[in-house]
Amino acid sequence: MTEAIGHRCWAIADGYIPAWSNGPPPEMESHEGLCILNAGGDPASVAVTAYFEDREPSGPYRFTVAPRRTLHIRLEKLDDPAPIPRGLGYALVVRSDRPVVVQQTRLDSRQAENAIFSTIAFPVTGIG
Amino acid sequence: MTEAIGHRCWAIADGYIPAWSNGPPPEMESHEGLCILNAGGDPASVAVTAYFEDREPSGPYRFTVAPRRTLHIRLEKLDDPAPIPRGLGYALVVRSDRPVVVQQTRLDSRQAENAIFSTIAFPVTGIG
Amino acid sequence: MTEAIGHRCWAIADGYIPAWSNGPPPEMESHEGLCILNAGGDPASVAVTAYFEDREPSGPYRFTVAPRRTLHIRLEKLDDPAPIPRGLGYALVVRSDRPVVVQQTRLDSRQAENAIFSTIAFPVTGIG
Amino acid sequence: MTEAIGHRCWAIADGYIPAWSNGPPPEMESHEGLCILNAGGDPASVAVTAYFEDREPSGPYRFTVAPRRTLHIRLEKLDDPAPIPRGLGYALVVRSDRPVVVQQTRLDSRQAENAIFSTIAFPVTGIG
Repeated sequence: MTEAIGHRCWAIADGYIPAWSNGPPPEMESHEGLCILNAGGDPASVAVTAYFEDREPSGPYRFTVAPRRTLHIRLEKLDDPAPIPRGLGYALVVRSDRPVVVQQTRLDSRQAENAIFSTIAFPVTGIG
Repeated sequence: MTEAIGHRCWAIADGYIPAWSNGPPPEMESHEGLCILNAGGDPASVAVTAYFEDREPSGPYRFTVAPRRTLHIRLEKLDDPAPIPRGLGYALVVRSDRPVVVQQTRLDSRQAENAIFSTIAFPVTGIG
Repeated sequence: MTEAIGHRCWAIADGYIPAWSNGPPPEMESHEGLCILNAGGDPASVAVTAYFEDREPSGPYRFTVAPRRTLHIRLEKLDDPAPIPRGLGYALVVRSDRPVVVQQTRLDSRQAENAIFSTIAFPVTGIG
Repeated sequence: MTEAIGHRCWAIADGYIPAWSNGPPPEMESHEGLCILNAGGDPASVAVTAYFEDREPSGPYRFTVAPRRTLHIRLEKLDDPAPIPRGLGYALVVRSDRPVVVQQTRLDSRQAENAIFSTIAFPVTGIG
């Protein structure tokens, strides 16, 4: 029950935090979630790099996922070393020193009714 | 036609049962579905563990998927050993004694019009 | 450019054709699409089996995907040997004699505004 | 941080650019996005082929993804050698001379409120 599962590197190619919102925050605010599961018995140190279309990558954004816990991060809240701009396409590479599982979810409330999507991220094999 | 297919362990990192709903239940009630296909000729005994951000994991939630059948479980209905709280991020690990295929779907009707997403879960290899 | 790509067996665990619709058919009618790409130079003979929660599997539903073509099938239109009932959970196994790529998409227009999801199906390896 | 990750060939089986839209362009116009991450240190030369149900494939559509950059392409804007028609099912094969990660996203605003989906494309192994 405390076996680490997953991979140490994951990628997401379509990142985008919609620039405006309808509906009550925080739930109905347009946002993008990065969800990480650490099913193992040791803390996972995670470093996220954000890639853009017209500028140098940003990061690493660092945090820890406790053992046998999940962490659901809202990407618009990351601000160290710099926030990810709203309304701009980006991509993510998520690296962890322990195996984890990564899933991306977007809530888009730019129109009156929200839309959502989610996908398991791409597990990168053969890395570190 | 009765060949077991899939894996014995699957993971989902973004679990979330929206806390409120619009529209007629049961179809339009906000919910999260865990869909399991057992294409093989033997019953599959499944054990689901739920992971949270700030508390110990919950489970295992146990059930059986009959041979050559699918099971579409609404996660808010699991209550043994304890219900999964609404409005709280979680993650799932699904273990089965036979190969199965797992897919996650959410229906979010917190606003007047529903939104949906679905993704094949992450197949964990090298386990069991 | 005519190289066959993909797998010969794919699975989908969450099939569901919503039971009612809003908006003009055919586009806005609730439906589930099974999309198959045959990038190779030979016709792909496909056989689909539908699995249910409380009855024997239905199928095989047979069709051919021409070389270097895609086929986007609306599952509610399959009727030989029997239609897939609306409003009932099901799952699919898609077998092909040539490598193909399979993706599932649902449009749900039970409420006034449509919702959609899509996921690449699960590629089954080690079969056939 | 400049390690190339991913695959050199990816496939998408359900392509479809909805034929009409509601809401302000460009954001709310119905569209399909092809998002590519090139995390490596060299430019990635990409060639996309579009497959249809009833006609010969179209392409290759060629472009470059700069090193350590992502590219979010709106498929309705590709026009060399020919545009991809709206309202018609298609499929894509994406080839790159360097490893990349590919994700597909659709925004459907045919009804008053938009719907979205996204999925990591299918990574084709054993090619090139």
